[in-house]
Amino acid sequence: MPNTKDVPDYYQMGPGTLKIPNTLFKDNRKRESYFMWLFGVMEADFYGAIDVDNCESILFMPRLPDSYAVWMGELKTPEYFKKRYGVDRVNYTDEMVTILSQLRPSALLIMDGVNSDSKSHFEAPSFEGMDQFKIDTTTLYNEIAECRVRKSPGEMEIMRYVNEMSCDAHKEVMKMMRPGRMEYEGEATFKHYAYMKGGMRFVGYTCICASGENAAVLHYGHAGEPNDKRVNSGDMLLFDMGSEYAGYTADITVSFPANGRFTENQKFVYNTCLKANRAVQAAMRPGVSWPDMHRLAERTIVEEFIKEGVLINGTADEMTDAYMGAIFMPHGLGHLIGLDVHDVGGYVNAPPRIDEPGIKYLRTTRDLEEGMVITVEPGVYFGDALIEKAYANPEQAKFMNKEKIEQFRGMGGVRIEDGVAVTADGIELLSHNVPRTVEEIEEFMNRSN
Amino acid sequence: MPNTKDVPDYYQMGPGTLKIPNTLFKDNRKRESYFMWLFGVMEADFYGAIDVDNCESILFMPRLPDSYAVWMGELKTPEYFKKRYGVDRVNYTDEMVTILSQLRPSALLIMDGVNSDSKSHFEAPSFEGMDQFKIDTTTLYNEIAECRVRKSPGEMEIMRYVNEMSCDAHKEVMKMMRPGRMEYEGEATFKHYAYMKGGMRFVGYTCICASGENAAVLHYGHAGEPNDKRVNSGDMLLFDMGSEYAGYTADITVSFPANGRFTENQKFVYNTCLKANRAVQAAMRPGVSWPDMHRLAERTIVEEFIKEGVLINGTADEMTDAYMGAIFMPHGLGHLIGLDVHDVGGYVNAPPRIDEPGIKYLRTTRDLEEGMVITVEPGVYFGDALIEKAYANPEQAKFMNKEKIEQFRGMGGVRIEDGVAVTADGIELLSHNVPRTVEEIEEFMNRSN
Ligand SMILES: [Mn+2]
Ligand SMILES: [Mn+2]
Repeated sequence: MPNTKDVPDYYQMGPGTLKIPNTLFKDNRKRESYFMWLFGVMEADFYGAIDVDNCESILFMPRLPDSYAVWMGELKTPEYFKKRYGVDRVNYTDEMVTILSQLRPSALLIMDGVNSDSKSHFEAPSFEGMDQFKIDTTTLYNEIAECRVRKSPGEMEIMRYVNEMSCDAHKEVMKMMRPGRMEYEGEATFKHYAYMKGGMRFVGYTCICASGENAAVLHYGHAGEPNDKRVNSGDMLLFDMGSEYAGYTADITVSFPANGRFTENQKFVYNTCLKANRAVQAAMRPGVSWPDMHRLAERTIVEEFIKEGVLINGTADEMTDAYMGAIFMPHGLGHLIGLDVHDVGGYVNAPPRIDEPGIKYLRTTRDLEEGMVITVEPGVYFGDALIEKAYANPEQAKFMNKEKIEQFRGMGGVRIEDGVAVTADGIELLSHNVPRTVEEIEEFMNRSN
Repeated sequence: MPNTKDVPDYYQMGPGTLKIPNTLFKDNRKRESYFMWLFGVMEADFYGAIDVDNCESILFMPRLPDSYAVWMGELKTPEYFKKRYGVDRVNYTDEMVTILSQLRPSALLIMDGVNSDSKSHFEAPSFEGMDQFKIDTTTLYNEIAECRVRKSPGEMEIMRYVNEMSCDAHKEVMKMMRPGRMEYEGEATFKHYAYMKGGMRFVGYTCICASGENAAVLHYGHAGEPNDKRVNSGDMLLFDMGSEYAGYTADITVSFPANGRFTENQKFVYNTCLKANRAVQAAMRPGVSWPDMHRLAERTIVEEFIKEGVLINGTADEMTDAYMGAIFMPHGLGHLIGLDVHDVGGYVNAPPRIDEPGIKYLRTTRDLEEGMVITVEPGVYFGDALIEKAYANPEQAKFMNKEKIEQFRGMGGVRIEDGVAVTADGIELLSHNVPRTVEEIEEFMNRSN
């Protein structure tokens, strides 16, 4: 089935906007989040050190030229930054080697490593005079990643805030998105609300504002598919957006019918996804394995599909063995979140990645621990590529009720994504403030307009 | 004089937003604009080649895995991209070496060079099998930079659009910014308007929303000074924002009183700046030297200051010799603009940089040519750092009427920035649609509220 979206050989965002032959976009660039986590510095060209033996934190600030005051703002003193960032001392970067020498460290532990999620390499700092120290580039990266896995009370407060504000912004979008709107108007409204009301200048990742079939494209909204389809009346919308404050981001997905009323088919798919989401949240507590939660979500979907006759000719166990769940939920259940939307530490001190359909995309295989913040984002999609592939595989096709499945083709899919903190005995739902049941959504959308 | 802005040792964007100990921001990252200029490709991992002898353009697209359809969207064919980007042929990147060999080039001209403005090094492409060709990395960079200096009719149409939309967005901001608002609410409103009405997802550079004294900080609004001051009633606002469409950006600055009425001092400073802006635009045409235009702006400011008695004890010539203009306008008059906000080619085929105060920051020393788009952005500031430095320099202090100057301290400054295209016999003012005179601004601000 072809994508119903118009494929232009020109670039146009929507009616009334300029139409031109072609284009390219830019994206957001985030500052390095390990340094942010350790020192919280907003300004450029700082170095930081922690004297582990003496529990002392040191910032090294650049010695800026007088012209900084003309171009960038008031020249600040070491005392200013000592107070601002709550460190034990602040010196200039040109004093760094001297001061580090005076501390007579047995070794300098230097950050160096590869992010298990983005595969990006942390740029290890280097500076003149570094060769006079014993350098250890292997220890620190995973140690700090591990520290970042459990959020402090202060971090948790920010995570609550970004989730509350992002929920409110999603509700603002639900009030205005209707058939005829462009997908990107949802993005514009979300960002505007979060900035005006929440002072949130950035979003934590590229906004996904998918309507209709586009909802089955998991990372829709990127530069090549920039949320530029017009919303039709029968469309389900899948809006995955999270705003950022002080570097910490939310990641929340809402799915709702553009015209405010679910069809029976949409209701079934939505409720299947919601049931998976709720089953996982009910089972989450410290000690629970995250892959087990992924399997629980898949299992819930498979069981609902059996009840509805979408999957036939077998038991849930047999279908699990045939990886039927990953046809409809081809991504991981959720990921650690914090300064990075896909936060670090998912494969530090963790069981190995599981090389099976769907679950191989899990961004962590760890057991849950108190203080973790993780997304719970089951999805149920009817994507052409995976359904056609399954049809062509007799081991899977035998379970598929084509007549039923074809009824769902074209509706894209549903994702219900929450931000969840793990507590001592269960969870705290951070993204509690969006309408989630079919009834809540219909009531909200028909009340507000 | 200390900055009146609160300097917190915590981070808070504004009332009602979360207050926390410290933070860091992220910024925008723009895709590579040379490749965009040549091929306009939005998707990642493409290569492009132009067969100069045969006037043939070739795109090489990545051979994507099936999983692309699940995560990113429909897998497109070479035929699709041939039509979409209007090239002569499209092949896969794994065919690149073979196809280039078949063309039997006398040499491959490869992009490699350093941006004269950002100092960033263009990452020269490299690929396996490259060593079988004669490689020339010196010719292409400046040739293409030179090509980008004069805009085509199609580019000019986009430049008009981004300027029109950005003017409208500025007017939207002027309607809502009033004493009591936070600076960043202007940024939020600008971006929202440009995106909702113009489909403009990004801004071309970090928004500068400066009030009061902050207006004298030329690049205010960066991560360390993130537009987080509350606007006071007597404040002048200096808002420098430009939205982007298809990679092309506007760059427009408006200056206006927060409460809608200029004081006499504000009016004098504003009119001085406007006179410089208008004098330059009246003199611009092909063949005119841009440094001469910079000097004309400075000269206009100095002459107005003499008339008002701000500068005393000398002639405009004597004051020019003493670099008095650069105390109050410490930046360059304007810069080429297009895909980059500070566009390329400013020092290609150009006279050398002029090492004198103020004018040394000019981003081009070229003569104007038809098809150039350039900003005209004189400013008049009363920045503490430069005024104190001038007071301490007898060669400059002797011309300064301290009593008068102190009356302007604390008001920050004014910048009036237009986007201007050079035509065959003069200019086309692209940013014509914002209120510019004192009367127009007061009328606009008091009509709309
Ligand atoms: Mn997520
Ligand atoms: Mn400018």
